[in-house]
Amino acid sequence: MRVFVAQLNPTVGAIEKNCQKILQSIERAKQQKADLVVFPELVLCGYPPEDLLLHPSFVEAQQRALEQIRQASSSLIVLVGLVRKSNADSEKFLFNSVAVIENGKLLGFVDKQLLPTYDVFDERRYFEPGKESQIWNFKEMRVGILICEDIWQHVGDGLYTHYPKDPVLQLLPLKPDLVINVSASPYRTQKLEVRNRVFIKCAQTLSCPVIGACQVGGNDQLVFDGHSPYVNARGELVQMAKGFEEDEVLFDLKAPTQPLSLSYDPAEDMYKALVLGVQDYFHKLGFKKGCLGLSGGIDSALVACIAVEALGKENVLVVLMPSRYSSEGSIADAQLLAERLEIETLLLPIEPLFKAFLDVLGPLFKEKGPTITEENVQSRIRGTLLMALSNKQGNLLLGTSNKSELGMGYCTLYGDMCGGLSPLSDVTKGQVYELCHFINRRQELIPKAILDKSPSAELRSNQKDSDSLPPYETIDQVIEGYVEEFLSPEEIAKNTKIPLGLVEELVRKIHLAEYKRLQSPPGIRVSRRAFKVGRRYPIAQKWM
Amino acid sequence: MRVFVAQLNPTVGAIEKNCQKILQSIERAKQQKADLVVFPELVLCGYPPEDLLLHPSFVEAQQRALEQIRQASSSLIVLVGLVRKSNADSEKFLFNSVAVIENGKLLGFVDKQLLPTYDVFDERRYFEPGKESQIWNFKEMRVGILICEDIWQHVGDGLYTHYPKDPVLQLLPLKPDLVINVSASPYRTQKLEVRNRVFIKCAQTLSCPVIGACQVGGNDQLVFDGHSPYVNARGELVQMAKGFEEDEVLFDLKAPTQPLSLSYDPAEDMYKALVLGVQDYFHKLGFKKGCLGLSGGIDSALVACIAVEALGKENVLVVLMPSRYSSEGSIADAQLLAERLEIETLLLPIEPLFKAFLDVLGPLFKEKGPTITEENVQSRIRGTLLMALSNKQGNLLLGTSNKSELGMGYCTLYGDMCGGLSPLSDVTKGQVYELCHFINRRQELIPKAILDKSPSAELRSNQKDSDSLPPYETIDQVIEGYVEEFLSPEEIAKNTKIPLGLVEELVRKIHLAEYKRLQSPPGIRVSRRAFKVGRRYPIAQKWM
Repeated sequence: MRVFVAQLNPTVGAIEKNCQKILQSIERAKQQKADLVVFPELVLCGYPPEDLLLHPSFVEAQQRALEQIRQASSSLIVLVGLVRKSNADSEKFLFNSVAVIENGKLLGFVDKQLLPTYDVFDERRYFEPGKESQIWNFKEMRVGILICEDIWQHVGDGLYTHYPKDPVLQLLPLKPDLVINVSASPYRTQKLEVRNRVFIKCAQTLSCPVIGACQVGGNDQLVFDGHSPYVNARGELVQMAKGFEEDEVLFDLKAPTQPLSLSYDPAEDMYKALVLGVQDYFHKLGFKKGCLGLSGGIDSALVACIAVEALGKENVLVVLMPSRYSSEGSIADAQLLAERLEIETLLLPIEPLFKAFLDVLGPLFKEKGPTITEENVQSRIRGTLLMALSNKQGNLLLGTSNKSELGMGYCTLYGDMCGGLSPLSDVTKGQVYELCHFINRRQELIPKAILDKSPSAELRSNQKDSDSLPPYETIDQVIEGYVEEFLSPEEIAKNTKIPLGLVEELVRKIHLAEYKRLQSPPGIRVSRRAFKVGRRYPIAQKWM
Repeated sequence: MRVFVAQLNPTVGAIEKNCQKILQSIERAKQQKADLVVFPELVLCGYPPEDLLLHPSFVEAQQRALEQIRQASSSLIVLVGLVRKSNADSEKFLFNSVAVIENGKLLGFVDKQLLPTYDVFDERRYFEPGKESQIWNFKEMRVGILICEDIWQHVGDGLYTHYPKDPVLQLLPLKPDLVINVSASPYRTQKLEVRNRVFIKCAQTLSCPVIGACQVGGNDQLVFDGHSPYVNARGELVQMAKGFEEDEVLFDLKAPTQPLSLSYDPAEDMYKALVLGVQDYFHKLGFKKGCLGLSGGIDSALVACIAVEALGKENVLVVLMPSRYSSEGSIADAQLLAERLEIETLLLPIEPLFKAFLDVLGPLFKEKGPTITEENVQSRIRGTLLMALSNKQGNLLLGTSNKSELGMGYCTLYGDMCGGLSPLSDVTKGQVYELCHFINRRQELIPKAILDKSPSAELRSNQKDSDSLPPYETIDQVIEGYVEEFLSPEEIAKNTKIPLGLVEELVRKIHLAEYKRLQSPPGIRVSRRAFKVGRRYPIAQKWM
């Protein structure tokens, strides 16, 4: 059998446009003499559609599009992901389904059985679980079809959920000749290795080939990395579609196979995920140009590099907004980076604005001298300037806060937290450095001075981040332990040798900054647990 | 039997403090010679605990507190809501439970069967459903215990969910003498009537009395209204605890009963919900004082009244920040309101700051004259001033955007959208007027001029909201139909006689403003469907 995997990048809600892409892929599959063409999970509406699912017309539009796809599917088997109505007496009104079409005839549907409801997933909010796995007979092959999570329980590493059934094991007595998994599986660092292991385990258990059709592209805060795999009956990964871009691959099950050797660079993958996330957020919203404030620090340097890669150098504007506290070095470093990136710069010193605010506010404050209030005013002046440029020029402002700062609340709401998208919000300070070194290994873009200087917000004289915070390595370890792994402060202290009192203090800071993060821009999820999407904590609470 | 309902206001996560409140209620129940004392759903950890539930230590702390409660429960039956671990082989690791204690002995647990996973509820994210209802024999009475949603399926009006089982009907063959429902049922307008009908229907079906123990208080964006009811075996509401405050009531099942006649004023209830929501948000976060910008318009006037009621007049600061476009009337109206409320005012004209920004930005912009950019700059100057006062004085800034404006995106991100809490974010413009009229019926606080003038942002000369928007009645009808009822534009046009093209344009505006609302402050939910909490829509989508 010749299986054509259409690894598409659908836009959420663009049902008609997604349908056209599907029809074009079907044509190409025919040209390549494929027997079967398979698309990712919910390809017709894009994943995740969220509460659009609650609008009946959103579901009906998919039924109409399915009819177009059916008509185009002569001489071919087509597996296409979409939402459909469930039975009237079920708890939820929808199924997350795959329509099975053969030679223009709709044979039926496969409904997702295991509905992830944790982290970034809310599928129980919308969907009813499907019934047991069955076998589909295509071209004298016995084929099992699983939807995303349905294949994952078999490796049983659920941090939040342990499903009482295993759709892979359901297939075992049915002796399939092939298993196809359609998915919208969001990227996170090292997810590819984990996902490939899941496919390999399934192939080993069932002693048959396993093929995946994975969504690719950014949809809001999630990036889907593609990498649709083909694992042979021996459990060897033998082919894989491209990562972080659309791809169409033909897996010929009769052709001889050889194990694929993968080289995997976590920094490169994260960089590509961030670039794709920025690119799709802009393009799917209809923005071409982006702007950001360039401080001379490492975070904005990294965002500038990502923006240039995602949008093109002609579409990025960086704004230098030095204050009385900015060092000469910072301005020079920012300018050097902009020169190397060949991007437009604008210099807007904020001194006259800062002075105007001090004139208005000064008489009101008994407590004199620069406190956190005056630091925030500088940051908010910059935010207001950047937003004015964004408003007037119709470009989208990129925020530069990283995960470590957002974790600690070391950032100014309505100031440096302004932005339509905050690409580094799930990237720790340690990872910011790793990504910059990765970039510079390809081409030295980021000036060495930016990489070498001590982090500073430069909002008062000789300020260093380390005046207010412990070293970022310490912060990052606590964020990883507490936010990503749900360890207790005692466990973190034991694992890391950080004093328990300090761990507790940092955990308190994480909770105290919840109110800021609620108002932060959307980010791009690259870790096991991001701050914005998929994490829900009360603000007015007294736990820690 | 003498049933003592402890309608408490727990703080999310404050397990030790909540436990102390519970122990005190148990003492008072003993003094009143109660046979049974019942507390609201999840009273021990507060509702909704959200992802705190994912921390094992958060669950263990409740077990330790339960042991204290058990020890204090001699000579009494105690029903106390808490989280407990589920069986090892279940999909989720927790139950939403009631511990049943009699004379210091833990008899067992009742686990919630129906787990709402829609709107503001995410219970399938955390909990495993409980087993069938059973009967508990207390003092020769057969008692059924249901947890919140368990009683709701019986009226079968689920907009999003139709559970395949009905715990009320499970009790029918078991012939209970009494049903007790513990709940954390969030306020929305007219919810009380709906909730009472649910209790009445249960009593009618089972021909036995039904008693509710409802949570009261604000926890972040949700307000719980209390109103714990006692419905007799004839299905008559005969007693009810207070609304919007803590209360302890003794329902004596042997005492004769008479139907209670309720007078219900939706505006009064919404006002009380908003006041309680503001009060608890401040107090549970540890803030005493609030501030806001007073424009002379109706929205900030209403927020000022709510703030004074919630925090006390000595704890509210209002800031007047007129610009070159502010009318004389606006300033005078704002000052008159502040005088009547007897609150501190501060006058900070923004002209010098606006001029400073125009000086910096003007040379950059080819397109001259006041556009939306300059309007936003004024709004952001005000936001920066208010945040500076908030930072320096340690008070919490209240936002003044209403639901109609947030729906249309007729508000400035990082400008008038600044705030730690936005009390009107779920109050439509029409409801803003209703609430103001309600306030003035008690005492004329809001100047007539504020009520009579046409809405205006006063960000350019002679600006009126109606220059950019259709009338608010039109907007409110579309928001209600689309956001709260999931009607299609065609259905809304048919129901309201608003032209279809205009409905579609407003629906598009609702979707386009999603990016602003993602960064808006938390609000207080008072409708069937708020914008912030319980509503999840993609930003970069192409549905409408």
